[in-house]
Amino acid sequence: MKLGCCYYPEHWPEDIWAEDAKRMVEMGLSQVRIGEFAWSRLEPTAGQYEWEWLDRAIKTLGDAGLEIILGTPTATPPKWLVDSMPDMVAVDEQGRPRKFGSRRHYCFSHQGYREQCARIVEAMAQRYGENPAIVAWQTDNEYGCHDTIVSYSEAAKMGFRRWLSDKYDHVDALNSAWGNVFWSMEYRSFDEVEPPNLTVTEPNPAHVLDYRRFASDEVVTFNKLQVDILRARSPGRDMIHNYMGFFTEFDHHDVGRDLDVASWDSYPLGFLEQFWFSDEEKLRYTRQGHPDIAAFHHDLYRGCCAGGRWSVMEQQPGPVNWARYNPAPLDGMVRLWTLEAMAHGAELVSYFRWRQAPFAQEQMHAGLLRPDSAVAPGGHEAALAAADIEKLGQIGETAKSVALLFSYEAAWLFEAQPQGQSFRYLELVFEMYSALRQLGLNVDIVAPDVALDDYKMVVVPSLPILSPSLVERIAKLDVPVLFGPRTGSKTADFAIPADLAPGPLQQLIPLKVARVESLRPGMTEKGSDYEVTRWIETVETGLSADEMVDDGRGIIFSSGPVGYLASWPPAPLIKRVFAAMAKEAEIATLDLPRDLRVRQLGHVHFAFNYGTGDCDITDHLQGGELILGEALIKPAGVAAWTVA
Amino acid sequence: MKLGCCYYPEHWPEDIWAEDAKRMVEMGLSQVRIGEFAWSRLEPTAGQYEWEWLDRAIKTLGDAGLEIILGTPTATPPKWLVDSMPDMVAVDEQGRPRKFGSRRHYCFSHQGYREQCARIVEAMAQRYGENPAIVAWQTDNEYGCHDTIVSYSEAAKMGFRRWLSDKYDHVDALNSAWGNVFWSMEYRSFDEVEPPNLTVTEPNPAHVLDYRRFASDEVVTFNKLQVDILRARSPGRDMIHNYMGFFTEFDHHDVGRDLDVASWDSYPLGFLEQFWFSDEEKLRYTRQGHPDIAAFHHDLYRGCCAGGRWSVMEQQPGPVNWARYNPAPLDGMVRLWTLEAMAHGAELVSYFRWRQAPFAQEQMHAGLLRPDSAVAPGGHEAALAAADIEKLGQIGETAKSVALLFSYEAAWLFEAQPQGQSFRYLELVFEMYSALRQLGLNVDIVAPDVALDDYKMVVVPSLPILSPSLVERIAKLDVPVLFGPRTGSKTADFAIPADLAPGPLQQLIPLKVARVESLRPGMTEKGSDYEVTRWIETVETGLSADEMVDDGRGIIFSSGPVGYLASWPPAPLIKRVFAAMAKEAEIATLDLPRDLRVRQLGHVHFAFNYGTGDCDITDHLQGGELILGEALIKPAGVAAWTVA
Amino acid sequence: MKLGCCYYPEHWPEDIWAEDAKRMVEMGLSQVRIGEFAWSRLEPTAGQYEWEWLDRAIKTLGDAGLEIILGTPTATPPKWLVDSMPDMVAVDEQGRPRKFGSRRHYCFSHQGYREQCARIVEAMAQRYGENPAIVAWQTDNEYGCHDTIVSYSEAAKMGFRRWLSDKYDHVDALNSAWGNVFWSMEYRSFDEVEPPNLTVTEPNPAHVLDYRRFASDEVVTFNKLQVDILRARSPGRDMIHNYMGFFTEFDHHDVGRDLDVASWDSYPLGFLEQFWFSDEEKLRYTRQGHPDIAAFHHDLYRGCCAGGRWSVMEQQPGPVNWARYNPAPLDGMVRLWTLEAMAHGAELVSYFRWRQAPFAQEQMHAGLLRPDSAVAPGGHEAALAAADIEKLGQIGETAKSVALLFSYEAAWLFEAQPQGQSFRYLELVFEMYSALRQLGLNVDIVAPDVALDDYKMVVVPSLPILSPSLVERIAKLDVPVLFGPRTGSKTADFAIPADLAPGPLQQLIPLKVARVESLRPGMTEKGSDYEVTRWIETVETGLSADEMVDDGRGIIFSSGPVGYLASWPPAPLIKRVFAAMAKEAEIATLDLPRDLRVRQLGHVHFAFNYGTGDCDITDHLQGGELILGEALIKPAGVAAWTVA
Ligand SMILES: [Zn+2]
Ligand SMILES: [Zn+2]
Ligand SMILES: [Zn+2]
Repeated sequence: MKLGCCYYPEHWPEDIWAEDAKRMVEMGLSQVRIGEFAWSRLEPTAGQYEWEWLDRAIKTLGDAGLEIILGTPTATPPKWLVDSMPDMVAVDEQGRPRKFGSRRHYCFSHQGYREQCARIVEAMAQRYGENPAIVAWQTDNEYGCHDTIVSYSEAAKMGFRRWLSDKYDHVDALNSAWGNVFWSMEYRSFDEVEPPNLTVTEPNPAHVLDYRRFASDEVVTFNKLQVDILRARSPGRDMIHNYMGFFTEFDHHDVGRDLDVASWDSYPLGFLEQFWFSDEEKLRYTRQGHPDIAAFHHDLYRGCCAGGRWSVMEQQPGPVNWARYNPAPLDGMVRLWTLEAMAHGAELVSYFRWRQAPFAQEQMHAGLLRPDSAVAPGGHEAALAAADIEKLGQIGETAKSVALLFSYEAAWLFEAQPQGQSFRYLELVFEMYSALRQLGLNVDIVAPDVALDDYKMVVVPSLPILSPSLVERIAKLDVPVLFGPRTGSKTADFAIPADLAPGPLQQLIPLKVARVESLRPGMTEKGSDYEVTRWIETVETGLSADEMVDDGRGIIFSSGPVGYLASWPPAPLIKRVFAAMAKEAEIATLDLPRDLRVRQLGHVHFAFNYGTGDCDITDHLQGGELILGEALIKPAGVAAWTVA
Repeated sequence: MKLGCCYYPEHWPEDIWAEDAKRMVEMGLSQVRIGEFAWSRLEPTAGQYEWEWLDRAIKTLGDAGLEIILGTPTATPPKWLVDSMPDMVAVDEQGRPRKFGSRRHYCFSHQGYREQCARIVEAMAQRYGENPAIVAWQTDNEYGCHDTIVSYSEAAKMGFRRWLSDKYDHVDALNSAWGNVFWSMEYRSFDEVEPPNLTVTEPNPAHVLDYRRFASDEVVTFNKLQVDILRARSPGRDMIHNYMGFFTEFDHHDVGRDLDVASWDSYPLGFLEQFWFSDEEKLRYTRQGHPDIAAFHHDLYRGCCAGGRWSVMEQQPGPVNWARYNPAPLDGMVRLWTLEAMAHGAELVSYFRWRQAPFAQEQMHAGLLRPDSAVAPGGHEAALAAADIEKLGQIGETAKSVALLFSYEAAWLFEAQPQGQSFRYLELVFEMYSALRQLGLNVDIVAPDVALDDYKMVVVPSLPILSPSLVERIAKLDVPVLFGPRTGSKTADFAIPADLAPGPLQQLIPLKVARVESLRPGMTEKGSDYEVTRWIETVETGLSADEMVDDGRGIIFSSGPVGYLASWPPAPLIKRVFAAMAKEAEIATLDLPRDLRVRQLGHVHFAFNYGTGDCDITDHLQGGELILGEALIKPAGVAAWTVA
Repeated sequence: MKLGCCYYPEHWPEDIWAEDAKRMVEMGLSQVRIGEFAWSRLEPTAGQYEWEWLDRAIKTLGDAGLEIILGTPTATPPKWLVDSMPDMVAVDEQGRPRKFGSRRHYCFSHQGYREQCARIVEAMAQRYGENPAIVAWQTDNEYGCHDTIVSYSEAAKMGFRRWLSDKYDHVDALNSAWGNVFWSMEYRSFDEVEPPNLTVTEPNPAHVLDYRRFASDEVVTFNKLQVDILRARSPGRDMIHNYMGFFTEFDHHDVGRDLDVASWDSYPLGFLEQFWFSDEEKLRYTRQGHPDIAAFHHDLYRGCCAGGRWSVMEQQPGPVNWARYNPAPLDGMVRLWTLEAMAHGAELVSYFRWRQAPFAQEQMHAGLLRPDSAVAPGGHEAALAAADIEKLGQIGETAKSVALLFSYEAAWLFEAQPQGQSFRYLELVFEMYSALRQLGLNVDIVAPDVALDDYKMVVVPSLPILSPSLVERIAKLDVPVLFGPRTGSKTADFAIPADLAPGPLQQLIPLKVARVESLRPGMTEKGSDYEVTRWIETVETGLSADEMVDDGRGIIFSSGPVGYLASWPPAPLIKRVFAAMAKEAEIATLDLPRDLRVRQLGHVHFAFNYGTGDCDITDHLQGGELILGEALIKPAGVAAWTVA
């Protein structure tokens, strides 16, 4: 695995570039990402390019031995460009145009802006496409950051109408698919359809789901436009985009099909603070991040490019500036996060950023260096990690174990119609993932359409729209499979299946969901050693339940290797179910303490201590040979060992 | 009492209509409401009517023996209509037009839309007015749902100016009535007046109150426009509108004057979840609804039509889709709610809806049938209720007992100027109603202008604008009357009376409110066995107080049969006061357990168990003869008995 | 000290004016403020002045012996004026114009409105400038009330561009100062710059800070326009504006430079309810206000005019109408607040308002009289206070003791970039002020540019932009000085200093802030008898820390008389630090109980009991002679004594 950093030569005096490059190499870094926000410097006014500074920056970095990932600057169009077509900005759900003054001020559907993007990318590709220092391109930056996927602009409206016309061909098909007869919402032509915002009460969820699909497809074509230009002009270079954390607004699998490497931006402390975790978890892991946050995304994004290639393009190196509260990582966490990415198979961990910028929006975001160029704590840990990586050397691949199916469409669907405000798809997936990880299992988070043949066990937290092809593929497997609540509960048109939920899954397990309920906080259905919260279903079936709650309703059913969970997963129960499945699949499990996580890569076992106390892994070593760390792992410590 | 359901033939294949009708009758239903959202099917494009399908639907239902309530479709104008006059939509308080894509996308003040409504209603009335299967018309649907009464559109602005000109004749009268000299808010003509939204800080409350009165009047004339057309073309049919729960945005008494039957839509679980109830109450009654929610509305809407005729047009039959959390009712609740409506004197309970729709916004809203046409739990309970009703037969009328005065204007006034954010009129009324019901009393919730002669006891939770005529009528009564806080605190122009609060009430009880205070949560004034919260007044009077708090301030005063409560009602105290009033009025009271409610209709006594445990009513039977249920009432159970 | 009241002759029948005036004098009042909202009566339609009623009002009041403060009516332009230039209103951050219908509906940057203001002020000045009854003018009313300082209108945009052009001369200087190369935010001309609202994510904080500086400067010039006209036409009269509480949206020091007297509007109960105080404090002081609220503002505004002259222009006399909850003051508090203002050196306490208005927005705001003209409790207490003031006579000045530096710019800066949502500048200042006051110290809150020579001790809660001149001035002092967290952390251009924080302070104390952290609630760093919350810094220094938390980080450092606090101040620690500083400065401190405050004015010591229990000050009297009250101070009681 390589290390790298994000660098902005345009932010610094040219006379320190060479010294910066030299220090990067000395710290153990071999790659550097540049350029992704530099449009106003590359083209200060329309059509007048200024390449020379970037030529010199690339030469300086390349001469120092660094491989360069060059970003296209389309996330930050300059003011002159926006002023030349003011309607290019996205419009928010409230109808407000989102103004210039920060970044991502564009609508993915604006054709004029797409032309401008093609032009600047073509110009960069012409100039640097064959430059030997360039090893990869990053398209744009963090698609969707700051709620920018779903736009309600005029451009989006026109794009949506075209998209609908392509999909449905005739408006009657749309009316029928959406059920527009309900509330007289029928259209006479595609030109009558509007974006689903600012309606009096909630819009038709089928309308919303198609709008979300459309918005996601717009990202795919926006990205592909750049990739196609770059591939033509810059052969042999990797095409990369940097995804974000806990972010589902577009289909990353779809975008990934056009990339060579899926990368993501890993900010474990900020993500802990900003997402659904409990106050208890936020305090316990305030300087470490929840132990499954980084791993979850590693395992998710590994499934987003055909070849399974993935990287961390931005790694948090210290306190950030953008969460509600921004504490510093515990000493050692930057190294831990780095090595954990390695354990999950990353090609690169690139720290964001080389040196803390003293100005503008991110001036309080730490770098590897402080603003005064002294090495920051994160820089010291990066150097330690570089040495560890050197010591560990190249490690082989891992055999497939557990597949967890993840669907972006499912996320949109449940946002459109949660039916209970605590039903959140991403949280459901994360809780199941976390239960698997607490058992020490290696998990691949994969799209619903991938081949599942080599997996020993399959978990589907929920898949409301269940394709016949997936049902067929599962039917052919002979490994334990668990489906979670609301699976098969909707048709592709966002309707209830004629044979009710779980729809086509009834071919694999003979049961029908007669009724569903969302439960307010505090309302529970008691089981043996667990309580059902949030969601429970009433199932009709001839099967006898594997687990029942006190009122007699079954919540776990199985039919051969196929299981169905008819509720939000209670933590103790789901862990027990997964352990039983693993046993049946003949995969070894561990009973890990709360703060410890392990992963196996090739022949190497890694352990990561996310706690603030020591953690003794002697029992887990099973006679293996420690190649990193000790059996008593310190807080934020890492151990690695091989088993003969 | 009849049973019915809401049915949408346009949602289902025509070949199942007859079977549906047959099954309705078999279930014990005799009425069916149809048509109220079908505009796009009746007039798919401007001026081209398609009646045939509705002709056939009416025939099919009528032939099966069902009586039909036909809805006018004006709650859901089609897209072509909205596109023909885009300014017909309501504008919200933030100035945003409320777009097409759901329902109720119109402004009550838009003259062009009124013309369109008149046209479609006239066309329907011509075609179906004399159809023998049609027994009633429902105008529009749920006026005001989704915050649609108060609009800030151009049409509303022009309408408001006309309304003001009619009311005040000269702008100087308006300036004087509102006190516009304050902050130089004076107008030189009615054409300078704007809707009271988006002002820098709060607008003049007199301005707001007149705007609310105007908005309510717009609903009255909008409704009357349809009623007048229908009465002319459809003689002998009942005119009905379906009101909602806990909803005060227009004056239901005023609209009711043009109707024959006031109906309402009863969703006890959704209302519990969405309104002010405490978490403890929301958990305790999560599958039953608070025991006073349905009864409160029954007793309220019985007072909204001249003849006291009322119905439940939509009865929750299972889990709904629109609350934050949507649990299922406890087994038996659908039957309980049905029989409770009977006990309060309903003519009809109509379940919403016959069959759960598998598509569009309400696909997760239960019906009597499931989407796969199997009978849902609610359907089974409807059939049980039908049998019970048959068994109970026709029951006579009830003697008048307690009158509780309710004013929509009071709700608007206190919203315009709460003077403490916990002072909520509807909650105040509900708390007093609940205290009366816990004593086993029959309550009529009536408008302030009704004759009170036959009542044995009168409660006025608060009536800030107290008319001289009401004072006169009360003066002539010789029964206990209690007035709550802030009564008589304002003139009709929203000013403090010259002689201070309680204004004209001082003719009945010699006291003056010298000072009022709103109290933050946690701040209390202690009394004997109670604590005053939220609101307390300092009263000047020669009377000695019936109750004092520890600082010596009196909070209950009486002068002959007239009492005044100078604070938010503490639960134990108000129950004691009402019991004493009832004793004086020689009405028997009970001390009911928390989850039990009773009502007397004619000679029949009903008891309803809202708890999850059994409830023994042996003591309350007083030698009566059980005609329904047992003395030990199960959860969600009902008992009825007659006393010799 | 004088007493006065706010009076609105235009609200009352002319025939009671004389009686009102007589009663004011009898109550002990000698000044009266009038006119500040009367524009629609002075100029009912464009250009048609009606002076006669005001002539008569002034004559009536003056004849009664009252001195008049005449307000300019520019806070309430009439409707005809707004309609004549609809773009004169402010536009909020969401882009919504803020409509007519209340008050302050203007944008400070609108040139047309400035002309109208100049015109009406000129007209008033011509008519009344030399009227002997007029002793002072109040410009406008409560600049900034209801969020009206920062406007995003077209007028503001044009004004901002001019302001930027004046400041930076060339746009390259702006780009460089703001660091606009970050995210390609560079401009090619000032005409490309927009107000920093509605950006996709947060705008450049340097952009925001300049916008806040601009907005503040607009208030300064708006005020000066009126002052210049009035000074020319009304020689010898005091120029006053009435500031508000806990309000930092413009630089009150800057505006104060053009005034003779800084006044403020003191509503202790409303401020307690509306600001950051804990629920425990809100309940404890619900009828008194937090004991430091009024004093804080007295000491702050005394520092806002060159000569230290200040007044309370509006004093809460009873319950108000505008807080979430509006309880009544404890008996005695109105008198206490009045005498406390005296103890802090006020020239005038003027009650708001004479008689409670029965109409419009503030009809629930108490006055000295009730709406029925009876004396309200506040009126009785005003009369008591008048007698006390008479008894105390004229008291001399106070020697300087503690200076606390306060910067409006700092407030704007930390709002633009809090880096942790619990870091609030005003709260930080208030906590330090409160700690000083609990030690019985007299405090002057002063601007960072004032001469500090005569002070015995200096506290700088935080001063992120530290001017070289201040560093020089401090260097010359030989008294204890404490600087709080984030001092010197930014350059004037909102960047991190090249030598890191505390920037130029490193000349006085050799330390560097290597890292900062914001801490979520519940996250603490433990010290000896205290816990650090909210904010902590990691300091690099050769100094040994005076205080360390458990992880070994120093949080208090000192170098000679200069100290630095590297965290949010823990209450017990900061009190200890201040006590030690005072001891070194040879200022006596007290250990006051929680609810007691003292102040020394000239030779008189005052004590104020903010508690609901008695407070014994025998120990503090130190042999002094009581001239007011007793040693056992009742709740809401006051004592005063002289020490020989
Ligand atoms: Zn981002
Ligand atoms: Zn509704
Ligand atoms: Zn104010």
